[in-house]
Amino acid sequence: MKLDKNMRILIVGLGLIGGSYAMGFSKRGYHVSAIDTDQNAIGFALDKGLIEKGASTVDAALVGEADLCIFALYPHVFLEWVGENQRFFKRGAVISDVTGVKAPVVYEIQSMLRKDVEFIAAHPMAGKEVYGVQNSDDRIFLDANYIVVPTDANTFNAIEVCKGIGETLDFARISALPPKAHDEMIGFVSQLTHIIAMCLMTCSKSEHLVDYTGDSFRDLTRIARINENMWSELFLLNKDALLDEIRTFTDELNEIHDILEREDIDALKTKMRLSTARRALFDKK
Amino acid sequence: MKLDKNMRILIVGLGLIGGSYAMGFSKRGYHVSAIDTDQNAIGFALDKGLIEKGASTVDAALVGEADLCIFALYPHVFLEWVGENQRFFKRGAVISDVTGVKAPVVYEIQSMLRKDVEFIAAHPMAGKEVYGVQNSDDRIFLDANYIVVPTDANTFNAIEVCKGIGETLDFARISALPPKAHDEMIGFVSQLTHIIAMCLMTCSKSEHLVDYTGDSFRDLTRIARINENMWSELFLLNKDALLDEIRTFTDELNEIHDILEREDIDALKTKMRLSTARRALFDKK
Repeated sequence: MKLDKNMRILIVGLGLIGGSYAMGFSKRGYHVSAIDTDQNAIGFALDKGLIEKGASTVDAALVGEADLCIFALYPHVFLEWVGENQRFFKRGAVISDVTGVKAPVVYEIQSMLRKDVEFIAAHPMAGKEVYGVQNSDDRIFLDANYIVVPTDANTFNAIEVCKGIGETLDFARISALPPKAHDEMIGFVSQLTHIIAMCLMTCSKSEHLVDYTGDSFRDLTRIARINENMWSELFLLNKDALLDEIRTFTDELNEIHDILEREDIDALKTKMRLSTARRALFDKK
Repeated sequence: MKLDKNMRILIVGLGLIGGSYAMGFSKRGYHVSAIDTDQNAIGFALDKGLIEKGASTVDAALVGEADLCIFALYPHVFLEWVGENQRFFKRGAVISDVTGVKAPVVYEIQSMLRKDVEFIAAHPMAGKEVYGVQNSDDRIFLDANYIVVPTDANTFNAIEVCKGIGETLDFARISALPPKAHDEMIGFVSQLTHIIAMCLMTCSKSEHLVDYTGDSFRDLTRIARINENMWSELFLLNKDALLDEIRTFTDELNEIHDILEREDIDALKTKMRLSTARRALFDKK
């Protein structure tokens, strides 16, 4: 279900994702405002029509009129912001986010939050290798997953509003996962893949071989250009799950190493057939 | 330097690469013929104008008139073919190939070959996730590397002809490497990346997480659809180099695992900055 167009939406944090949300909502006729400490980001967003109103400080009026506040900040900044400024929220407002790790954020926000507003977490699995509101592009959502991450504390209404964000922005797939399952999933499909891409670039063989890279190597390292502040925070917040995924992957890599070492062609081909079949399956999705 | 258009070119093995070579040469006005055991492949290539003449058996006349024979076969089939049929080569012919592993092939071919013909190895680093002459597309070379792999036994003239193949087909970059250096490079930039993509699909976490894959996971596993006969042969032929690359990568992955485990943020960010800087560098190439 799409969101109600009379709703006032406030985006806090106008980076790539915040800016792309603002763009997507504004294009579709919603009232969007934003807060970001960077006045240039606010100026740009006003200039390009991504938002109707904006402020570079915590503007009580902007926060107080918002029916839906979406936070697109680093996790620790998000936690601090809510701790310091939650008195400004409108009674009955729905609060959501775009944070990439959930368990260490969701429960803390829900436990500190005023009882007359509700936090419902979400994770838009979309991004680019460039940053900032200047690179905003709401088309990045069209082929992407949107995951609602409810807890037992959430109401049906807030979950529907949260799903409505994904539906309004035309995400390709919308699903729901509890915080812990979300973090395990993200540890594998997103964090581990970033670690692998990094490793390919940082391991000793990389430096002098750049001249010979083909498509395969480029594909596997596209995400090796990594925002060290954001990703180191996300990795550490999800440390246990991520370490577990790294070990799972390393075990499999060691197994294939040993298969190759003993020249067990049948076992090698069995792995290859499994890999091909599973990959073919998700090309169909 | 482009090849002389009066040259008669024979492609042995009309798969994706052989077919794309035939297409590229024919489009540019060269005389191209082909041999493949699959009569359908020959029929298709004749029908589409990829070749002027073709045969599904080792046709003495076709082989005997070729000034340049390019082999696009699995390594062991290539070795067998030359062993059995080299009496048909034209005196003075240049023989080349597209084989993905060099040291176990080049020296054996050169040592068994008649002294009045010359083998000069090459590796076009291009491909697709689909197979067969029906998927031929010479545009796959436009953004690709072409590597000439000479030995001490090669003459200046043959090396120039071999470079001429890459230049005629408009490869983006043409370079030269000795066989051992080539195989180490390919073990890292191509074989290791295929192993990693496979591992991501075959490790235990993969099966139930397909619904949540984003772009990163798709990029890292595009090459996980793998031709098990070709790649198992190439992996085993390059076993020592590949095992070494797997260990280099695993060592780095273990190092990052340990950095994360002890929450050494500075070390983690240093790795991320190195990764970003190296990847940015080769985006410029």
